[in-house]
Amino acid sequence: MTSPLPSDLEIASAATLRPLEDVAAELDVTPAHLEPYGRDVAKIDLAVLGEPTQRHTAKYVVVTAITPTPLGEGKTTTAVGLVQGLGRLGRRAVVALRQPSMGPTFGIKGGAAGGGYSQVLPMERLNLHLTGDFHAVTAAHNLLAAMIDNHLHHGNELGLDLRNITWRRVLDVNDRALRNVVVGLGAREDGVVRETGFDITAASEVMVLLTLATSLQDLRERLGRIVVGYTTAGKGVTADDLHAAGAMAALLSDALKPNLLQTLEGGPAIVHCGPFGNIATGTSSVTADLIGMRGSDYVVTEAGFGADMGAERFFDVKCRVSGLRPDAAVVVATVRALKSHSGHWSIRPGKPLPDGLLAENPSDVEAGLPNLRKHIEIVRRFGVTPVVAINAFPDDHASEHEVIRRFCSRLGVRAAVTTHVADGGAGARELAEIVMEAAHEPTRFEFLYPLDLPLEQKIEAIATQIYGADGIELSPAAARGLRDYERLGFGGLPVVIAKTHLSISSDPTLKGAPRGWRMPVREVRAAVGAGYVYAICGDMRTMPGLSSSPNAERIDVDADGSVTGLS
Amino acid sequence: MTSPLPSDLEIASAATLRPLEDVAAELDVTPAHLEPYGRDVAKIDLAVLGEPTQRHTAKYVVVTAITPTPLGEGKTTTAVGLVQGLGRLGRRAVVALRQPSMGPTFGIKGGAAGGGYSQVLPMERLNLHLTGDFHAVTAAHNLLAAMIDNHLHHGNELGLDLRNITWRRVLDVNDRALRNVVVGLGAREDGVVRETGFDITAASEVMVLLTLATSLQDLRERLGRIVVGYTTAGKGVTADDLHAAGAMAALLSDALKPNLLQTLEGGPAIVHCGPFGNIATGTSSVTADLIGMRGSDYVVTEAGFGADMGAERFFDVKCRVSGLRPDAAVVVATVRALKSHSGHWSIRPGKPLPDGLLAENPSDVEAGLPNLRKHIEIVRRFGVTPVVAINAFPDDHASEHEVIRRFCSRLGVRAAVTTHVADGGAGARELAEIVMEAAHEPTRFEFLYPLDLPLEQKIEAIATQIYGADGIELSPAAARGLRDYERLGFGGLPVVIAKTHLSISSDPTLKGAPRGWRMPVREVRAAVGAGYVYAICGDMRTMPGLSSSPNAERIDVDADGSVTGLS
Repeated sequence: MTSPLPSDLEIASAATLRPLEDVAAELDVTPAHLEPYGRDVAKIDLAVLGEPTQRHTAKYVVVTAITPTPLGEGKTTTAVGLVQGLGRLGRRAVVALRQPSMGPTFGIKGGAAGGGYSQVLPMERLNLHLTGDFHAVTAAHNLLAAMIDNHLHHGNELGLDLRNITWRRVLDVNDRALRNVVVGLGAREDGVVRETGFDITAASEVMVLLTLATSLQDLRERLGRIVVGYTTAGKGVTADDLHAAGAMAALLSDALKPNLLQTLEGGPAIVHCGPFGNIATGTSSVTADLIGMRGSDYVVTEAGFGADMGAERFFDVKCRVSGLRPDAAVVVATVRALKSHSGHWSIRPGKPLPDGLLAENPSDVEAGLPNLRKHIEIVRRFGVTPVVAINAFPDDHASEHEVIRRFCSRLGVRAAVTTHVADGGAGARELAEIVMEAAHEPTRFEFLYPLDLPLEQKIEAIATQIYGADGIELSPAAARGLRDYERLGFGGLPVVIAKTHLSISSDPTLKGAPRGWRMPVREVRAAVGAGYVYAICGDMRTMPGLSSSPNAERIDVDADGSVTGLS
Repeated sequence: MTSPLPSDLEIASAATLRPLEDVAAELDVTPAHLEPYGRDVAKIDLAVLGEPTQRHTAKYVVVTAITPTPLGEGKTTTAVGLVQGLGRLGRRAVVALRQPSMGPTFGIKGGAAGGGYSQVLPMERLNLHLTGDFHAVTAAHNLLAAMIDNHLHHGNELGLDLRNITWRRVLDVNDRALRNVVVGLGAREDGVVRETGFDITAASEVMVLLTLATSLQDLRERLGRIVVGYTTAGKGVTADDLHAAGAMAALLSDALKPNLLQTLEGGPAIVHCGPFGNIATGTSSVTADLIGMRGSDYVVTEAGFGADMGAERFFDVKCRVSGLRPDAAVVVATVRALKSHSGHWSIRPGKPLPDGLLAENPSDVEAGLPNLRKHIEIVRRFGVTPVVAINAFPDDHASEHEVIRRFCSRLGVRAAVTTHVADGGAGARELAEIVMEAAHEPTRFEFLYPLDLPLEQKIEAIATQIYGADGIELSPAAARGLRDYERLGFGGLPVVIAKTHLSISSDPTLKGAPRGWRMPVREVRAAVGAGYVYAICGDMRTMPGLSSSPNAERIDVDADGSVTGLS
């Protein structure tokens, strides 16, 4: 396991792709429902959901993680590795993933498509544009913004309060200079001056809405319900009030169709939508999962960040919309992240790992285990069977893995070391076997809260029962906001907590499984079209910046047309 | 001709599309070079240009027009009708058109794909996203912008003058509030405060650059040469200085491939790029034309606005880059536009035509003929044979057409009435016949000016020899700008005059063929990557606004997924 791997790009370039129609056949999707988009990528027509199939409904597996370091702990590679492992065991398995945002691709990461021998192909297409869904979200979002400012310019008949317009603009680029802007400068014919800003496209409500929409009609209705701001009297103004939602739906009708790609080992991979994991749901689309459930044995999907973040939203928001019930949850753990939860090590993005972190040190791993225990408890709280995937890195030591295995055994949780990055599906066989066992246990899934609970109590339930807080502290603005939302009829929506992913608490410096803290809620916002209220706890970045040496500087094209510098 | 036509959308929806591989075969493009993008649209791999073909090089025909009214005079429908007419005569003909911008689609026009029985299909795809090329231009343009502001944020090592950064941002939406913005507001980590703005994507230099690039390598090199601004010492700072051009090329590598669609009568239509016709070249791509020339009998392409605008740039800029030489130029004339050049009628967009304009009135047509004569002279100035297409409207009168025919006959110019909107290719047979005659005459094409002429003299040559001005008046800023550009080594570039398209002069109120005027040049700018200097004469809008009742309000989707409200 210590021989150096070829780079992700080298592995991807050396791969031979299967004809996509053969890949689709594994999902029971016929060529008639496949719309090719360039080579080796196709959209799947939603009409396939109405077609009869001979297959059993699939088992539904979500991949989550312990609280990650800023480097990420390999949920995507594990999800891909797991379906490759299931394939090695003769099972039809599909992985459903989010599409990477181009902002980070040109920023730090240089691409996101799994890694090593657990990747999704074609890699260049995945990382650049794919089938244009993000661009469609950008276009629909900004058309609505233009129609808002146009409405102001032509007399503001709806009476929008200029200081209470919540709809911003979006671009799929890391551009800090756009976070806070003043628009409408110039002459009278250049619009109305006001302060606003841009978020990255992954942070658009339209992105989450596209993720959660179950049909074109549902998409159209959700778009119409988007609240863009409020009148001075406190009434919400919607996209339908502005007559914008029809045109937005027209822009998004192709983007609603999931994209079919393949794993490095030739199995189906559905890549669709990419909402932020901190302020939004951080999950891939409902339509992707529904298509997978219809035609496969196992659908493996991913939920962003730790189980406190993505998995909770996956259970309480996505599963509520889709009607699907998870059969197992894979909790990805790494030696380095557990060591960081010991509190003895600090890992920072763009910096080398601290000296000594890689040395054999089972006691630091042991010290970090409360974090793993907490994530296991979160999964169990929803009545879902957890499985721990120990994602092995080349510098890990067997003694460190053994600490984790023994701990899981004491908790009665299945665990396996997986070497899918180095070994592909063969490295994930043991993981695949225990996931199959877990998924065949009887389920007793339940939501954390009923929808008719008041918004404040929903927030409190997540803070106390999931995060382990002693309670919540609403700022005056947040308290007022929640009262307004109840009055406006948004009280029946689920909630999303916008908080750091680097701690189970809302304080990124608290490692392990923090106790004895209260969660401060600074502000609340309503994503009425997507269908949730979100509570902002801490500083949330919705538009990243580029570093002093962004990855874009290292990306180029060869004379033969192939892209270099993606990783 | 007075029976009412079905709407464009009704005609498009009733059409049966040919398999795209059959359409491609007419261009001698094999399936191996065709990359499908959704249903009935494909990209053509540029590798096809290196493939041997048994066919003769095509005749090359540009469609231009007299000075249009704000409604447009039907260049696109005539180009489509003409290739359909050539098809009826047994000739292989391809039309090469610009992709419509989504800004105007949601603004006034509701779509642009020809009209009536001379359309390009599939209409919805053409008007919404197509294959994402405009989005790729937006992404590449804005990545460069983000890297500029990132460079400022991290210390501005290159010494960019904050007051002399010429690179703005772009979005494909009509959004007047973005014309003038202040970015970088907020805290220290939110960038550097400065004033800038957004243009519509069609006005991006990247769009023109993509239009003119002949290969991926040429694209990469042009991107590197883009000048984004100047140091305080007056030195240009390029995209290569910022290490941005490689990533931009990666974003644009698919967008460089032309898109294959089909006419209503099943012939090939290549739709690719869409630069503005007022500040940029207003032509479709070089690569599209090169592919057409290789495999067809006739390539019919379009150049924006009147012959003073698009045709001049087509000849002096596009043909210089492509090496292609036109065999004929079709000058589209309409009765209503000629009547408007009499000076007796005023036509405004969004308003009904004036009462009386539709009455039989050959003498008003006669009074407008100097405009037609001037455009014929412009075409002849380049050694190209003109052909006049009288684009018939249902309310025209035979006596009015006859005035135009007789006039052309006196000038020794072939002319034909064409009813392609009402009758499709059958209505353009006579036009097709005279275009074939004209295209087989010997050519004596010449550019207006050699590249080694100083920039000021190039501008003067266009103003005096094409527009009929007595001379030019450089503002102090423009004169200084031209001196700077000569010093910076941009003197060998061709020039584009950014002026109104509603007059041959730079004053939109002057109709007919204005004489006795001098052209004021307010400002000059350099599009070094695209490869030209442009002179700004009058107020140029590079970001349109929406009206009080934009077409977006009437666009929606049906439950079955079809889009309504495009026209």
